[in-house]
Amino acid sequence: MEQLITIAAFAAYCRQARRPLGLVPTMGALHAGHARLISRARAECATAVATIFVNPAQFGEPNDFAAYPRDLPDDLATLEAAGVDAVFIPSAEEVYPCGHATAVHVAGPAIPLEGDARPGHFDGVATIVAKLLIAAGADRAYFGQKDAQQLAVVRRLRLDLGVPTAIVAVPTVREPDGLALSSRNTLLSPEQRALASVLHSALQVGADCFVAGARDRELVEAASRAVLDREQAHLSVDYVALVSPDSMAPWKSGPALLAGAVRLGPVRLIDNLLLGDPQS
Amino acid sequence: MEQLITIAAFAAYCRQARRPLGLVPTMGALHAGHARLISRARAECATAVATIFVNPAQFGEPNDFAAYPRDLPDDLATLEAAGVDAVFIPSAEEVYPCGHATAVHVAGPAIPLEGDARPGHFDGVATIVAKLLIAAGADRAYFGQKDAQQLAVVRRLRLDLGVPTAIVAVPTVREPDGLALSSRNTLLSPEQRALASVLHSALQVGADCFVAGARDRELVEAASRAVLDREQAHLSVDYVALVSPDSMAPWKSGPALLAGAVRLGPVRLIDNLLLGDPQS
Repeated sequence: MEQLITIAAFAAYCRQARRPLGLVPTMGALHAGHARLISRARAECATAVATIFVNPAQFGEPNDFAAYPRDLPDDLATLEAAGVDAVFIPSAEEVYPCGHATAVHVAGPAIPLEGDARPGHFDGVATIVAKLLIAAGADRAYFGQKDAQQLAVVRRLRLDLGVPTAIVAVPTVREPDGLALSSRNTLLSPEQRALASVLHSALQVGADCFVAGARDRELVEAASRAVLDREQAHLSVDYVALVSPDSMAPWKSGPALLAGAVRLGPVRLIDNLLLGDPQS
Repeated sequence: MEQLITIAAFAAYCRQARRPLGLVPTMGALHAGHARLISRARAECATAVATIFVNPAQFGEPNDFAAYPRDLPDDLATLEAAGVDAVFIPSAEEVYPCGHATAVHVAGPAIPLEGDARPGHFDGVATIVAKLLIAAGADRAYFGQKDAQQLAVVRRLRLDLGVPTAIVAVPTVREPDGLALSSRNTLLSPEQRALASVLHSALQVGADCFVAGARDRELVEAASRAVLDREQAHLSVDYVALVSPDSMAPWKSGPALLAGAVRLGPVRLIDNLLLGDPQS
């Protein structure tokens, strides 16, 4: 597995790579959710490249950035074992050169929910993702469905900037109790970990209402929220929202996404369920 | 000469083109300044492509956008005669698809001078230029030195987004009396046209001071400004500024750019002179 540390070397590697070329952008601290992205890229592409960069620009709170789990030796072993051809591991100085002054700003799907809760987060995401997509010029890039709003933002910027890379969404991987895999799960205490799966259970209750025929957005949200409110001594709810998965606007018709965010002590967890188009 | 109207067709054309590929982005109303860009691209590249798009997003005043000169049949004849291989002429709907929500924002060199005078202008420029650079994936893109701040903004975004296209600056073409060629010159009345060359003369006076050894920024600016002030009955001065050509910050040392902007009735004209590094 080649290790590349400059944008120029990464771009040169990608230009000469066998096609199709698949890109898996990560912030490291790899878990089975990332492994699913990688094995999909490996299966679909002649060349699979991953990136590891904990992007300071997408963290609002300095503590969140400092606390974000990092384990490079373990990550490299995981990528090597998964048959990744090359990994790009730039420094912050390489990604944000001296005098850096450019930001990619997405409005629309980046505004509500996570955009509201984490000002500047999606500007940071959009800027680094645009840069990685441009440098790699990949045929496909793989993102987890767990970060559904990020996926909507990336799809929007891809379309708006005319990036010639297909965006592939990969289903969320879950623990046996339903908790979505996340690098931040390692920051939970045993008690918080035991409680954390309530987010998925709560979303499942709302989803069951929707699938059973409920078409009142607020009723679906309230059904999920009621499950979370039972644990209000231990967690706080940022939002539960039934939205359209492309625009992230409140759901009216068509495919739906039921998304939620909670805080368990210092750890903020998000999850979502994609609900099919009730008309189709 | 191929005429392409969709981003997909333009990107596909560029992907299969013989290399090196040269890109000349324009807003049409082509004059001898554009011809210089095109002949440079033609001479240096196996394939030369031009784009014509009057980008609404970079016009602040609706009147300026409406009044901007357009002459597509003439432009196509010019490009054909210059030996351009293909021209991309998208509609606004093609460039800004339904739900468009992405802007490329450059701070740094985009903030003073034109950025100050025309809020939002450089966001519009950066967004369309990023999109054209990404779609074309060209080896070289050609921009006029006349729009020196635009050049600094494009160079900044190219570096910050890691766009693998070299940016080539082409010297300003002038009328015999020194007026820099500009599509907006056609909007001048005969009296305004007769006066317009004073912008270049004024900048030349400041440049002469600098070349003669003056190293006081305000003195150089004042020398140019004094020439313009003699015509204050007929024009208004937006700015005269001695800056660093990369950062567009007030000049302290190294290479310098003396830039000016004036209004003659409804027409706003800009011009600049690039002054070498006094140390070299």
